[in-house]
Amino acid sequence: MPSEFELIARHFSRASPGARLGVGDDAALCTVSTGMELAVSTDMLLAGRHFLPDAEPEALGHKTLAVNLSDLAAMGARPRWALLAIALPQADEDWLAAFSLGFYALAGRYGVDLIGGDTTRGPLTLCVTILGEVEAGQALTRAGSRPGDDVWVSGRLGGAALGLAHLQGRVKLDPRLAAECRLRLDRPEPRVALGRALRGVASAAIDLSDGLLADLGHILERSGVGAELEFARLPAEPALAAGVPEDLARHCLLAGGDDYELIFTAPPAQEGAIAALAQRLGLPLTRIGRIVEGQALTVRDAQGRPLAIPAHGFDHFADQNDNRPWPISRHGP
Amino acid sequence: MPSEFELIARHFSRASPGARLGVGDDAALCTVSTGMELAVSTDMLLAGRHFLPDAEPEALGHKTLAVNLSDLAAMGARPRWALLAIALPQADEDWLAAFSLGFYALAGRYGVDLIGGDTTRGPLTLCVTILGEVEAGQALTRAGSRPGDDVWVSGRLGGAALGLAHLQGRVKLDPRLAAECRLRLDRPEPRVALGRALRGVASAAIDLSDGLLADLGHILERSGVGAELEFARLPAEPALAAGVPEDLARHCLLAGGDDYELIFTAPPAQEGAIAALAQRLGLPLTRIGRIVEGQALTVRDAQGRPLAIPAHGFDHFADQNDNRPWPISRHGP
Repeated sequence: MPSEFELIARHFSRASPGARLGVGDDAALCTVSTGMELAVSTDMLLAGRHFLPDAEPEALGHKTLAVNLSDLAAMGARPRWALLAIALPQADEDWLAAFSLGFYALAGRYGVDLIGGDTTRGPLTLCVTILGEVEAGQALTRAGSRPGDDVWVSGRLGGAALGLAHLQGRVKLDPRLAAECRLRLDRPEPRVALGRALRGVASAAIDLSDGLLADLGHILERSGVGAELEFARLPAEPALAAGVPEDLARHCLLAGGDDYELIFTAPPAQEGAIAALAQRLGLPLTRIGRIVEGQALTVRDAQGRPLAIPAHGFDHFADQNDNRPWPISRHGP
Repeated sequence: MPSEFELIARHFSRASPGARLGVGDDAALCTVSTGMELAVSTDMLLAGRHFLPDAEPEALGHKTLAVNLSDLAAMGARPRWALLAIALPQADEDWLAAFSLGFYALAGRYGVDLIGGDTTRGPLTLCVTILGEVEAGQALTRAGSRPGDDVWVSGRLGGAALGLAHLQGRVKLDPRLAAECRLRLDRPEPRVALGRALRGVASAAIDLSDGLLADLGHILERSGVGAELEFARLPAEPALAAGVPEDLARHCLLAGGDDYELIFTAPPAQEGAIAALAQRLGLPLTRIGRIVEGQALTVRDAQGRPLAIPAHGFDHFADQNDNRPWPISRHGP
C-alpha cells in the first residue's frame, strides 16, 4: 500500500514554476506581482452532495478546479495558484491518477500551479483553495450595481441542471442532447477571460453556481437594489426546448445551478463594449433585464406579467432531509 | 432551521480589518505588504480521524486554527488571513457558536482575519487555509540543514500523545497530569513568535505534528543529510516520568504527534542567540542532537548505543485498518 507521501509525490508534485516554493514544505511561498491584490477563495465538495459518488474521476478533477476558477473569474482576477486537500476512502491509484489528470489539464490551460494541499483517509471530500491576482482596486464585486444598469449573463442557462435531471431519471433526453447537458454539468468552463475583460466595464458580477435567481439575489442584496428580468430573453440551453416539461425547464433556467456562467451588471453605455467582447470571446452575452430601485427581484413573461418564482437556489441546511446530490452551492462565508 | 447564509452571517462574519474585502463575495481581496512573500498552507481535519467526534467545539475551534498557524510558524511567517470550509451533519447553532468562539479567540491573538470559506452539510470536516507574509527570501524551509548543525526543539515533547493515550484508556494518569496533557492535546500553542525570531538563525525548521522522528525525517530528506539525537536530552513532558510504561513514554517522545513545537537546526555559532531567544520568549529551547553526513537518523541512549526506533509518525494510508482517532498528520502535498 503506498504511503500518503508516496501518493502525493506520484500524483500531485508537478513543478510549480509560478511559485517560489511549491508542494513539500510546511507552506508554499509565492510572490504577488507589484500593483496587484490577492484574490482568494475556498470550496469544499462532498461526494453524494456536490457530486455523485461514482463520478468519473478525470471529470471530477476538472470540475473541482473549474468551480474555483469560476470564483476568480467573477472577481475579474487572474488565477495563479491552487491548494488541494483530499480525503479518500482508500488509496486508489487509478482514481488518483485520473483525478490529477483532469485537475492538471485545466490548471495548465489557465497557468495555475498546484502549490500545496493535504491528503487523508475519509469519506471522499475535496477542498480547493484558489489564489489569483487582480489589479489593485479593479476587482469586480457583488456590491456595485446601480438602478438603471443592465443585467447580463454569459453563455446558455439551465444545461447543467437539465443534465442532472436526466441523470436522476427526472426527464429523458435524446442521447445527443443528454450528452451535451452532461458536458455542461461535468465540465463547466470557467469564464476567466470574460471576467478579466469586464474590469472597468461591469458594475458588479457573480458566477452562476446556485441558480440565476439565487445568485443574482446576492448581487441585489450586496448592492442594495432590485431587478426586473424578462423571461423571454433568458438564453436557454437548446435542449430545454426539446420537449422538456415546462415546469422543469423553468426550474432549470431560474433555479438550476452549476452552469458557471457569469451574471453581471453594467451601465447601458457599456452595451457596445459588451457586444464587442461577446464577439471577441466567441461567447454569447445576453442582456436579460435591468437593475431597479428597491429590493424586489421580478421576472416578467412576454406579456409583462410577473411570474411565480421558484424557491431560490439551494441551501445546504434549509432542508435537512434532502440528501440528493445536487449542483454545487458555493457561496459560503 | 437557519439557512447556510444565516449561519455564516451569525457565526463567521466578523469584521476583517486586515483585508480589502472579507467574507461575502466570490473571493476575498487582500494586499500583501511590499517586500513580503505570501506563505500559504491548507489542512483538512476529519472527525474520528484527526479529532474525536465529540470533541469540545470551542477547543476544536482553537486547535483547527492552531495547527495551521503552526505551519506558518515553521516557515517564519507572520499570519494574516484564514479561510474556513466546514461540513456539518446539521446546522447546530450551539456547536457553531462555541466553535467560532474558539477559532476567533486564537485568530484575534495573532491578528488573523477570517476572510472567506464555505459551509455545507456532511460528515464533520474542517478545512482551513492559512495565509501569511514573510520577508522575501527569509522564509525557513526544510531544506537548509548542513552537517555540523545542531538540532533543536522547542517546549516539551510527548504531552499531546500521552493525553490521547489517557483519553483512550491506554494509560491512567492522575487527574492533574491528565489535565495538563489534555491541554497539550486540545489547545496547542503555535510557536509563531519563535518562528519569526528564527529567521536568519535557523538553517531549517518544521513543526512537530506527526512525531519527532517523522518530522525531523522530513528535514533530513529535504536537506539531504542525516542526524544523531541523544535520547537523554529530549525535553520530555513531566507527566511522562510519572509511572508511564517505558515503551509508551518512548513512543510519545519519539513518535507521538500533535505537540506543535518547532524542530529546527542551526550552526553551532548560533547557540548563544538561541539561548537568549529562549529567555526572551520564556520557552525552553533544547539542543537534542546534531546533523551529520549521510541519510541515517540515529537516536543514542546515555551509553551511546543506538536505540531501536519505533515506526515513524503516522501515515493515513499505510494501515487501512487503523480507524482510531489520532493526532493530526498534516504534512500533505
